[in-house]
Amino acid sequence: MDGFRFAGVACGIKASGARDLGMIVCDRPASAAAVFTRNKMAAAPVGVSRQLLAAASGRAVGVVVNSGNANAATGRRGERDARAMAKQAARAAPRGGAMLVASTGVIGAPLPMEVVGRGVAAASAALSPGGFHDFADAILTTDRARKVAERTAGGARLVGCTKGAGMIAPDMATTLSFVATDAAIAPGPLGRALRAACAGTYNAITVDGDTSTNDMILVLASGAAGPAGRGFAAALFDLLDDLARQLMRGGEGVHHVVTVQVTGARTAAEARRAARRIANSPLVKTAIAGADPNWGRILCAAGNAEVALDPARVALKIGEVPVVRRGAPVTGAWEAAARAVMQRPEYELVVELGAGRATGRYLACDLSHEYVSINADYRS
Amino acid sequence: MDGFRFAGVACGIKASGARDLGMIVCDRPASAAAVFTRNKMAAAPVGVSRQLLAAASGRAVGVVVNSGNANAATGRRGERDARAMAKQAARAAPRGGAMLVASTGVIGAPLPMEVVGRGVAAASAALSPGGFHDFADAILTTDRARKVAERTAGGARLVGCTKGAGMIAPDMATTLSFVATDAAIAPGPLGRALRAACAGTYNAITVDGDTSTNDMILVLASGAAGPAGRGFAAALFDLLDDLARQLMRGGEGVHHVVTVQVTGARTAAEARRAARRIANSPLVKTAIAGADPNWGRILCAAGNAEVALDPARVALKIGEVPVVRRGAPVTGAWEAAARAVMQRPEYELVVELGAGRATGRYLACDLSHEYVSINADYRS
Repeated sequence: MDGFRFAGVACGIKASGARDLGMIVCDRPASAAAVFTRNKMAAAPVGVSRQLLAAASGRAVGVVVNSGNANAATGRRGERDARAMAKQAARAAPRGGAMLVASTGVIGAPLPMEVVGRGVAAASAALSPGGFHDFADAILTTDRARKVAERTAGGARLVGCTKGAGMIAPDMATTLSFVATDAAIAPGPLGRALRAACAGTYNAITVDGDTSTNDMILVLASGAAGPAGRGFAAALFDLLDDLARQLMRGGEGVHHVVTVQVTGARTAAEARRAARRIANSPLVKTAIAGADPNWGRILCAAGNAEVALDPARVALKIGEVPVVRRGAPVTGAWEAAARAVMQRPEYELVVELGAGRATGRYLACDLSHEYVSINADYRS
Repeated sequence: MDGFRFAGVACGIKASGARDLGMIVCDRPASAAAVFTRNKMAAAPVGVSRQLLAAASGRAVGVVVNSGNANAATGRRGERDARAMAKQAARAAPRGGAMLVASTGVIGAPLPMEVVGRGVAAASAALSPGGFHDFADAILTTDRARKVAERTAGGARLVGCTKGAGMIAPDMATTLSFVATDAAIAPGPLGRALRAACAGTYNAITVDGDTSTNDMILVLASGAAGPAGRGFAAALFDLLDDLARQLMRGGEGVHHVVTVQVTGARTAAEARRAARRIANSPLVKTAIAGADPNWGRILCAAGNAEVALDPARVALKIGEVPVVRRGAPVTGAWEAAARAVMQRPEYELVVELGAGRATGRYLACDLSHEYVSINADYRS
């Protein structure tokens, strides 16, 4: 990826000895855009990065990330530590933009700054154009595998990596995602493309409904490949969709990633809210796990979403199989076909609300194991 | 209970042969108040009972309830069936008020009206002042035991029963609750007392976050014992609290019922919203199951509740043990003590938001088994 160097080293924050400190450094100041957690208990590096990026008017020279310690619920000391970490990393980067900072791991414990300092020094020394996979490894916590993706858009390339275990993620399930592209694009349009892409991907996956203290998605655009073309926004969406699906598939006990597509809503916001409610419903998630075409649970969840719907016009398709029409189950032998769709690792639920023309989607996954053995195998 | 007769019979709606049709009949028209599900996919009997009660200006002569079939997602036929069922039951009751109707069980299948008709006839013949426990049994579905409670308020008595399996309830987890009292109280004040009691009990328990298509809570007041005194509202609250806790404890795999008490909120609504968010968080629920004083999960859930909070003033007590003060874990050996509290079958989490003086509560329970074995035993 032209315009960037990457590193990922093991410095001892993680007891396991795995890589735990990563850096991306731009050859020249790059356009940057980020989406941060909206959690009110946001960790120190989130607040610090938000301030640094705003102060630098969307120009960044890189990011330094540690795993193994979230620097969250660490008070004023946490903020000082995050700033110090960014400042040290900035020595390896050009001037003219912000060195951002992110953390993930245990919360409530101060960053071991001596160890972190050694890590930043080692990562600074290890930076190389080919170090992206080392960086991608250094941001992982409980993930079972590296999560990377790559796309092209005209002459530009995009590479991205992410971390976070899906649905039944241990502890905070922090999601971090970093994208580097050689497209030339100003911070304003980059931010709009990122927010649009997030709305349909990272902000439309439901894990366990909680947003972590440390979530952050960052895109850096070096401009080395010339102007971003018309396909850039679509390529960014597609890249983040790929990474988001990897997050879901990587969750413990996840066997099905299901696109919940809501149609016929009064507004796009209501469509999204209904899709989210369905995707978050434990009863729906256990039905997904059991490949049980339990349409009642799905419609019941939609009914709870506080959105306009017409019970007499509600409809449901499981994959290509119509299951409910005009508010009642279709007659005929749909059940075996619907069950077969639900055996697939990825499929779609299409829920028509009958209240308008707006659509929206969410990605859901299954809720598994014992919870499932009680719920999914049961029909009253 | 003066002024009422009760019955519960087995008529064959349930394949198991268990009691599946219950009736309460008032000697004279009684004051009635009800709370119905807000689910937009509400079942036929919910709409019919709401209309009948409104048309009768809060006077009722009884209720007929079947289990085994929810009469939900059954279209116009469902409404006709619910009305027919109520009409037949009304023959056993005096004139001058509504005969209400409720159903719980499988959804999407029409009521077997011939069977139901035989059941209503049998129940009408079986009505007796001592039949309350038969009635309480006839409303159960997957519950493992009868759920009843009794209170007194001055010279008045209240008896109540409920149904619904807790947290990981199979299918719709419909909640029904019926209370009969001999207090004399007009429908208006009775409704206010019921709504106030529900806000802190039935509407403050979180099961799996879904509201069923059939939920209904009904109170009938015969007036046989003379005017309801000042203690009536408190006794009704206490009775519903008892029944709601029985619902939670009765859930599959529930070992802990936890009162999430939020203090220091800007408004009561925000306090309730934060308490609900904490109580609904799968990460918090698995921590409860594992008796793991994982304060980070609790504060993270509060941070996601979209309420005002001051991260520097947030505090947490687990039972009587202070765990977080001024946004950071307390120093010293609190962990063993907090863990001991969390072994108890019932305890309290007190979360201070540091943003005001309002309070609110929710009841939570644990999320158990395999989901737990992955989540609760783990600390990153």
